[in-house]
Amino acid sequence: MTSRSVDEHAEIVRQLLARALAPVGEGVLVPDALGRVLAADVHAPIDLPVFRNSQMDGYAVASASLREVPVSLPVTAIVAAGDAGPDRLEAGTAIKIMTGAPVPLGADCVVPVEDTDAGNDRVHIRVARRPGEFVRDRGSDVTSGTLLLAAGAELTARHLAMLAAVGLAEVPVLRRPRFAVIATGAELMPAGTALAPGQIFESNSVALAASVRANGGDAVLVDHSTDVPDRFRELLHRAVEGADVVITSGGVSMGDFEVVREVLTPLGGWFGHVAMQPGGPQGLTTVQGVPVLSFPGNPVSTLISFEVFARAELRRCAGLPPQPADYAPLTAPVESPSGKRQFLRGRRVAGGVTLESGPGSHLVAALARADVLLDIPEDVTTMQAGDDVRVWEL
Amino acid sequence: MTSRSVDEHAEIVRQLLARALAPVGEGVLVPDALGRVLAADVHAPIDLPVFRNSQMDGYAVASASLREVPVSLPVTAIVAAGDAGPDRLEAGTAIKIMTGAPVPLGADCVVPVEDTDAGNDRVHIRVARRPGEFVRDRGSDVTSGTLLLAAGAELTARHLAMLAAVGLAEVPVLRRPRFAVIATGAELMPAGTALAPGQIFESNSVALAASVRANGGDAVLVDHSTDVPDRFRELLHRAVEGADVVITSGGVSMGDFEVVREVLTPLGGWFGHVAMQPGGPQGLTTVQGVPVLSFPGNPVSTLISFEVFARAELRRCAGLPPQPADYAPLTAPVESPSGKRQFLRGRRVAGGVTLESGPGSHLVAALARADVLLDIPEDVTTMQAGDDVRVWEL
Repeated sequence: MTSRSVDEHAEIVRQLLARALAPVGEGVLVPDALGRVLAADVHAPIDLPVFRNSQMDGYAVASASLREVPVSLPVTAIVAAGDAGPDRLEAGTAIKIMTGAPVPLGADCVVPVEDTDAGNDRVHIRVARRPGEFVRDRGSDVTSGTLLLAAGAELTARHLAMLAAVGLAEVPVLRRPRFAVIATGAELMPAGTALAPGQIFESNSVALAASVRANGGDAVLVDHSTDVPDRFRELLHRAVEGADVVITSGGVSMGDFEVVREVLTPLGGWFGHVAMQPGGPQGLTTVQGVPVLSFPGNPVSTLISFEVFARAELRRCAGLPPQPADYAPLTAPVESPSGKRQFLRGRRVAGGVTLESGPGSHLVAALARADVLLDIPEDVTTMQAGDDVRVWEL
Repeated sequence: MTSRSVDEHAEIVRQLLARALAPVGEGVLVPDALGRVLAADVHAPIDLPVFRNSQMDGYAVASASLREVPVSLPVTAIVAAGDAGPDRLEAGTAIKIMTGAPVPLGADCVVPVEDTDAGNDRVHIRVARRPGEFVRDRGSDVTSGTLLLAAGAELTARHLAMLAAVGLAEVPVLRRPRFAVIATGAELMPAGTALAPGQIFESNSVALAASVRANGGDAVLVDHSTDVPDRFRELLHRAVEGADVVITSGGVSMGDFEVVREVLTPLGGWFGHVAMQPGGPQGLTTVQGVPVLSFPGNPVSTLISFEVFARAELRRCAGLPPQPADYAPLTAPVESPSGKRQFLRGRRVAGGVTLESGPGSHLVAALARADVLLDIPEDVTTMQAGDDVRVWEL
């Protein structure tokens, strides 16, 4: 059985995923684009405001008519928002105007209705206004052709407000990478069933699909297979048809019934040992151009394999920021086997990070309580309290 | 027209929303529960592991049989994962066992296959093992009845892995508060249409619906209405049927065609002025027990009204953490009108926060570039560079 370091295997996986997950743009309707990532720069197709308009309910007038106030002016029209209104204001007159309605040529300010008698035939104006007051100029927010948002922006409600305001129906966003997830194991039963002796509830497909979604991907096929090769082959076939990447769990180690290894080895798959704990047995195959990442079946091994080998590249291709990683001091000593990179479950506490559990790869409750992985290098066998350890944010 | 301070109006809205958005639990399938918030504590219905099982592919033996190694033992059975296997191991024999398969009574350790000749009839074992080695005890991760997750937990992939592993099909989560959003205005046209003079593209419904979704709610009805009362009434009727809260935009101020105010005032609505900028004209009505929040129609006013009056209570009822608010130093002086609380659009920069734009409530592009609101109190008219200003995270 061949052996690789974590870095060697991660780099091989990374290159395969980068090719399989090359960013693809797709158009989505603006109202549906919350949280999506722009695939291209977006420029304004129009000015905003689209036309010079009133900031208030009131009267559009020429400021020259207000040199002496109070003053009474004839009202020649009433313009509601949505109306085109007259093209031009006659000198010495007023047009009653609602917020957002077009300010006609000849008018250079708006007198708020509060400063008038609100008349419809004539209006009595009490307060003078300077040119431009309560008028929003065309293009004063956005001019046509301006870069509104650059490729890579993660779209918020405020972004969508702007994109809708300039009249865009669709925006180009990165397509979510499509993952298929196949858990394997004769012992796996779906939730809600009664377990016979020797059976357990299937959780890896749930965990992997949720991890894919939480990191910007879509889980387009989520299923589990027995150890019968034909059942696994049938699922694998459907998976590579519809997905950019397939993840399997289980069936990769040294037992007598390793369905994933048995089916994929003849297809050119690599199965071997990566010098890490948990997650040692790993497989990697390309089936019809689709990378198939084969993780071990222990629940903790599966999720840590996802963190170590899949998450960063998925996030990169989905346009999401990289997962944070930093160094933090240990609050207690840690032991680690020589020659294996350890990914221990930990938790942030005052003063650093603490171990959440032992190394057992079946400890799913401990993993659920953890918020970080502690990454202990291959050649390190002991670390002391206060030593800085590399920390992966979960 | 009556007038209120921001705090007065916010408290009245808060009380209405708290009643309308009282937390309601609903069951969702575990695979669909990513990001949802638990409505109740969840306890383990079973032990994990469910039964004592093997951590490795290998041989289940009594450690007493390995006092002298190498040793050759007869293999009496082969147990795959998923098999019940024999109840008991005869002394002086071995059972070939796969990872995850039950360890029978009488066996107290597992010898990894790597330390043997992998025989099926007899096995040659080279390495001794202590009691418990490579055996996972029943309940060593979780014991039945243990609190797995407390009410209020926001569910991650790791949480779902644990919930699936204990066999839960559904979990109780908080129902997402249901909002209806109705933008009003005769000038509003949907994206992708050609604008006639005086028309603009409708963006408030997009912005409000996205804001609701981004803060843990569902937008169950999103539409826009002309200024024709019957059209607005028809939408309002559908909205209060299906939503916990209705938000309208536009039609609340001093103009001649204020459809929201006209329709809702006879239903007991309050319409008046809140001492803030932007967002001064506000309305609040209860229709068939459903709060109807009426925000002004300028795009910036609408979104800031949502931030100030709706967001915190929505997040609280959705079980999400409160929006962060803190104080930060201004990098340049700010002026503010007396008697009005100003919510200025700002951005975090090195050394503090800076203004992103002027106060115009039509500046949607400037709002899209902002990442904070600067909250200037009613009685403050000038602030200097270096002064601490209250900052709302957008």
